[in-house]
Amino acid sequence: MAQQIRDVVEQYVKLVGSGPTEDIVELYAPDAVIEDPIGTEPKRGHAAIREFYDVLAQLDRETELHADTLRVAGNHAAFLFTLVTRFGDQRLTLSPIDVMEFDDDGKITRMRAYWGQDDMSSETV
Amino acid sequence: MAQQIRDVVEQYVKLVGSGPTEDIVELYAPDAVIEDPIGTEPKRGHAAIREFYDVLAQLDRETELHADTLRVAGNHAAFLFTLVTRFGDQRLTLSPIDVMEFDDDGKITRMRAYWGQDDMSSETV
Repeated sequence: MAQQIRDVVEQYVKLVGSGPTEDIVELYAPDAVIEDPIGTEPKRGHAAIREFYDVLAQLDRETELHADTLRVAGNHAAFLFTLVTRFGDQRLTLSPIDVMEFDDDGKITRMRAYWGQDDMSSETV
Repeated sequence: MAQQIRDVVEQYVKLVGSGPTEDIVELYAPDAVIEDPIGTEPKRGHAAIREFYDVLAQLDRETELHADTLRVAGNHAAFLFTLVTRFGDQRLTLSPIDVMEFDDDGKITRMRAYWGQDDMSSETV
């Protein structure tokens, strides 16, 4: 199970950086719930999850999993990753800690992302 | 709020490394719940929390907060830290990601720790 979870996390971060959205959605169970950032209104189910990641899909972006931070406990995982997006000459870097819960098939049932304004930086390149 | 949460997290990690237990317990709300590691039976309330940290109190130990991993989102925080304990010539290193929820007074209401066997290492010193 731990190895399966590690694989899904790696795949998730890679797909957030490259898409397609549908492949991200497929990593989630049909009734999965995401809360990003944590404390905001949770989004439930594939349609809402697709809508969430579709915003990203329109951006020039890349991601990196900080693999040394990946923690797996039973059917739970936590990890830190970096998402860099570019709009024209602006580069926005966001570096959240995500926690996930998985079902027995290795599908993500819950994702909650920990980040605030302090974890976002923007620069002109 | 974010700064208060950062302060409590720093204090928490420091106290886990040095005690006393009672000062750790005081960081928690009276009906707080801890789950360490996540997926195990949650412990609720000061008495159960005291019992949990009292085990640590008997060990030669030190901690370090990986401050660059600390994420604060509203009344939530996530961070990675390292706990090193020594028994005789054995040194055990455990490096979890903890997530915490806080009430309006800055007391911890929930702590869940993400770590598995892979995040623990032991060596003879």
